Amino acid sequence: MNRQDYFSDRANGMKRSVIRELLKLTAKPGIISFAGGLPAPATFPVKYVEAAVDVVIEEEHATALQYGPTEGDARLREDLSIIMRNDGIKTTADHILVTTASQQGLDLVAKIFLNPGDTCITGSPTYLGGLQAFKSYQGVPVGVELDEDGMIPELLEETVHKLEKEGRRPRFIYIIPDFQNPAGVTIPEARRKRILEIARKGEYLIIEDTPYRQLRYSGESQPTFQSMAPDMVLSLYTFSKILLPGFRLGWACGPDWIIDKMIMAKQAVDLCTPPFTQSITHAMLVNGALEKGLESTIELYSKRRKLMLECLDREFAGIGGVTWTKPEGGLFLWLTLPEGMNTEDIFQQAVDEKVAYVPGSAFYPNNDNFRSMRLNFSYASEEQIVEGVKRLGNLVRKNI
Amino acid sequence: MNRQDYFSDRANGMKRSVIRELLKLTAKPGIISFAGGLPAPATFPVKYVEAAVDVVIEEEHATALQYGPTEGDARLREDLSIIMRNDGIKTTADHILVTTASQQGLDLVAKIFLNPGDTCITGSPTYLGGLQAFKSYQGVPVGVELDEDGMIPELLEETVHKLEKEGRRPRFIYIIPDFQNPAGVTIPEARRKRILEIARKGEYLIIEDTPYRQLRYSGESQPTFQSMAPDMVLSLYTFSKILLPGFRLGWACGPDWIIDKMIMAKQAVDLCTPPFTQSITHAMLVNGALEKGLESTIELYSKRRKLMLECLDREFAGIGGVTWTKPEGGLFLWLTLPEGMNTEDIFQQAVDEKVAYVPGSAFYPNNDNFRSMRLNFSYASEEQIVEGVKRLGNLVRKNI
Repeated sequence: MNRQDYFSDRANGMKRSVIRELLKLTAKPGIISFAGGLPAPATFPVKYVEAAVDVVIEEEHATALQYGPTEGDARLREDLSIIMRNDGIKTTADHILVTTASQQGLDLVAKIFLNPGDTCITGSPTYLGGLQAFKSYQGVPVGVELDEDGMIPELLEETVHKLEKEGRRPRFIYIIPDFQNPAGVTIPEARRKRILEIARKGEYLIIEDTPYRQLRYSGESQPTFQSMAPDMVLSLYTFSKILLPGFRLGWACGPDWIIDKMIMAKQAVDLCTPPFTQSITHAMLVNGALEKGLESTIELYSKRRKLMLECLDREFAGIGGVTWTKPEGGLFLWLTLPEGMNTEDIFQQAVDEKVAYVPGSAFYPNNDNFRSMRLNFSYASEEQIVEGVKRLGNLVRKNI
Repeated sequence: MNRQDYFSDRANGMKRSVIRELLKLTAKPGIISFAGGLPAPATFPVKYVEAAVDVVIEEEHATALQYGPTEGDARLREDLSIIMRNDGIKTTADHILVTTASQQGLDLVAKIFLNPGDTCITGSPTYLGGLQAFKSYQGVPVGVELDEDGMIPELLEETVHKLEKEGRRPRFIYIIPDFQNPAGVTIPEARRKRILEIARKGEYLIIEDTPYRQLRYSGESQPTFQSMAPDMVLSLYTFSKILLPGFRLGWACGPDWIIDKMIMAKQAVDLCTPPFTQSITHAMLVNGALEKGLESTIELYSKRRKLMLECLDREFAGIGGVTWTKPEGGLFLWLTLPEGMNTEDIFQQAVDEKVAYVPGSAFYPNNDNFRSMRLNFSYASEEQIVEGVKRLGNLVRKNI
């Protein structure tokens, strides 16, 4: 029997990501990589982890090393509900599900909402892991273009009307409102309201994915979709960027009928998120790790972002048609090259010249846009940022 | 819009497990519960965890707190390949995928192999979490009866022939060969060979789920399916029962073309298993926690199993038609009541008399068998086992 015949249709549709293969090239020594999405290890609150682990092993080992409830550690859910309330969201612990980071949130969303062939709205571009999750259940992401204020409401309206007419009603609208991955843009309050109106009119759910929300370096915080419409928004969060990624811990917050279904689904997916790391994280929320950590993380990333923007100004001076976003937070900015250039085509050259980025096509639902690249400013050191952006500038100049 | 209209077909097929609701009753104070499947907290190697965490925080925090590769920590995969080779399996690290415990292994199996409506073979009875995983992708588990030597080959052959004739070819055969959950039975080598012959003839994959394999208290170890047919068997393991469940760590081992597809699927499911707990587990495999821990775990469970069997002999003496299995390892035994009795019907009465079990119907693909109950002997103390089995005996006598 053919190997393909053993697999499900959804599995036969899965491919090794070209991007992940490309990214392997960037691990070579000497390469300055703006490609990954990694937090800087310097931001990991190691001392707080250590103190928290001591408490857990000393006082809670019998529960922390055992199985736990599918919905998550009750104390952690309470902690998270407080964090949410402090952000203007009227919620309670029973509207929160602890997940194995937000990627699992996306997997559960796809599992409970998408039949094969079902459409959903995403940004164009949008988070690669979201596209992967939706496609892995044979969902069909339909992209809506962004500008410097995020998803464009007029285009959203046009797209959902078109889909409805074709009998392809979208199952949800997937939005990354704060410091979007990959574009770095943030949706202002007024536009959030406009998007909500469109969603409410069509009775569409909104999936709000906001992993970087706490990492703001300038400008004013905008209210979450969750705070404005708790009855129609499911929000996904993660500790990966604001505390550390190595625990793989995140949470979902939303209407109880959705959280309930996610809990049912999660039961069959992995029984529960590790109680050990949940206990440690609870202890870290008690010992102040998040607050203190965020302070120094924001200081570090803010500096790196500023530096990268200055370097871009300098190194791309005089190259016509190059633009880039100026994120108020997060980890990424989005550089767009002049008409006719292709960031996939020059990727190998970049690697040869020892600088790396993610070609923008990876982030488009149909991989059909080639002029942009995503640059990460959280991981590389200041020295590397200066030298790396210089190499990028030379690369573009050579290929123009 | 109706809430049901938002969900996918697979989500609308998910129900809150009646069993999990029943089990909530067993958490009441004073109840002696043989219902759960929990390891005894006394078996958790707390000192070894502590020592391992010290190493990880001191020396490896920059990688342990960061993102890691989807396939798992390279050192841990190497450790696991050695454990497998010591068990007679000729394998290498690149045939191993670290999973968020074996429940994720089951989820990935269902995701990559099952289209909606596809059949798969399971034991009847079989592990509840397996049934949940397969059904969550709209798979259709078809049960094959067990006897005291596990799945009956003649019935397996009959069932696959019947399914083939109906055009419902099973996508795989799911087997728990060692100390089966829930029945406690083990398949002898000769029968394993017979099952393999049937599978090879029909070109069926075997999914071998063996979470308790290292917990043998008597009799001879039987060779794994993996060792006998590495080209057609995918094996799922977990640290939950042999080390501790609170890390949610397990692994899959099998043909590279299957492991590769599982890695692709896992990428979209949760990016990677937590590097932090993988690092700790690697350090615990180095510091001897598994070996030492297994020794004392086997000693403890072996004693509890012996005691429960003695209590059953005493408390059920003179009740005609009651039988139970005598497991050579694992965590569970399987008690069957006389014709006409129903363990679901008397469950509430049991709880009122402060003893609990899992009604056997939960473990049948079609929930159509009511005479049996699963008893766990790993969690309750010796005192509780004596008193609990006495209560069970009285309950049955009263209802006969």
